[in-house]
Amino acid sequence: MAKKELKLRAVVAPTETVIVSAYDPDGKADACTLAFYMVSSHVPPCVTIAINATQKRKTLKDILETKAFVLGFPNVRQVKEADYLGVESGYRADKIANIGFTVSPAQTVHAPIINELPLSLECEVVHTVTVGSHMQVTGEVKRILAEESILDENGRIILEKLQPIIYDEEERLYLGIGGKAGDAFRPGIEFKKALEAKDRE
Amino acid sequence: MAKKELKLRAVVAPTETVIVSAYDPDGKADACTLAFYMVSSHVPPCVTIAINATQKRKTLKDILETKAFVLGFPNVRQVKEADYLGVESGYRADKIANIGFTVSPAQTVHAPIINELPLSLECEVVHTVTVGSHMQVTGEVKRILAEESILDENGRIILEKLQPIIYDEEERLYLGIGGKAGDAFRPGIEFKKALEAKDRE
Repeated sequence: MAKKELKLRAVVAPTETVIVSAYDPDGKADACTLAFYMVSSHVPPCVTIAINATQKRKTLKDILETKAFVLGFPNVRQVKEADYLGVESGYRADKIANIGFTVSPAQTVHAPIINELPLSLECEVVHTVTVGSHMQVTGEVKRILAEESILDENGRIILEKLQPIIYDEEERLYLGIGGKAGDAFRPGIEFKKALEAKDRE
Repeated sequence: MAKKELKLRAVVAPTETVIVSAYDPDGKADACTLAFYMVSSHVPPCVTIAINATQKRKTLKDILETKAFVLGFPNVRQVKEADYLGVESGYRADKIANIGFTVSPAQTVHAPIINELPLSLECEVVHTVTVGSHMQVTGEVKRILAEESILDENGRIILEKLQPIIYDEEERLYLGIGGKAGDAFRPGIEFKKALEAKDRE
C-alpha cells in the first residue's frame, strides 16, 4: 500500500460535536460548541474536553470560575444551532436566547442544562491542564439526564434515536452515524478462543 | 420533553476506535485498541488518549517508558483485528503477529507504525495525568502518514474512504460513519449574519 506523508495538522479523523454550558458570575448561562471531547475515566465516570485557551472564550472562563459545566449532545436536526454556538462569542451576543434554547439549573453542580438537547451530563471540574493552544478540562460526571425518546425500555441510549453530530474537519462537514459494522467484544474474543484452541492441539 | 435520570456511567455517546502502538524495552512492538481519544491542541497538533491504569496494560507501560506512541485508525473492514487487540493482553500473546499485521519504525519517534492501518500519527508524549481509573496521555503529533487510497487529489482525508470505526458502548456495537448532516461553519455563520442584519434595521 502506497503511503503518503501529510502536512501536520490536528484534526485528521472524525470528532463528536458537543455543547458545553456554564454560568457566568452574574448567573447568566453561556454555551459553546466543541469538537474535542473524550471519555477519560470509567471509575468515577469522567469526561475531558479541550478548549482553545488563546481565544479568551467566555464559556472557558465561566467553567474555571464555577468549577462546573454541563456537557450536552445535540442531534443532527440541531446542526444550525450547534454551528452558531461555535462561531459566535458569548461576549457579543446572548447566544442561547438567539437560537431559542432555554436552560434549567443542573441538580448536582452550578451549571445550566440546555433543555432542548437530548442528552446532558452534569460535570464537576476535577482537573485542568494547558498543553499547546488548548486547556484540557476533566469533569467528573455527577448526573446524566436524557430525553425518554432516545432510550430503549432498559434505559439504554439508542444512537439511532439520539442521532449525534459527527464533525469532519477535513471536508468541513457535519455527518450522522452510520450502520452496524460489527459486534463489540465478539469477533476479537472468538478469534482469541480459536487461537487458544489451536495452541492446545 | 420528558427527561429521565440515568444510572451513572462513563460512555453514553459514540467514541472512535483507535489502535495505539509502542515498543517494549526489548524493541518488540505491542498495540492495544482504545475508545477514549480526542484531539487536544491545534498548535502544536496534539492528541490525548485515556488508558485504564488499573489493568497494568503492557502498551501503557511501554508508552511511559519510551515517551512515544503511534495512533492508528482502523477501518470497518478491520473490526475483528481491532476487537482482538482490545481483548487480548500483550503479556500473553504476540497480538500483532497473531492477526497478521506488520510494523515499521516511525521516523520521528521511537514507536512502531502498524503498516496495515490506513492512517497513523507519530506522537511524542508531552503530558500525562491520572484521573480516576485512567491515565490521560497527551502526545504531540510529529508526523502523519496516510494511505494514498484514502486521500483526495488535495491530500485531504476522505472519511468515506477511511471508513473509521465508531464504538457504541450502550449497544456494544461497532458502527460506520453516516451521511452528511450539514456544512460546518456555514449554517451558524449565516444565522449570525441574519441576526446582525436584523439588529441594524
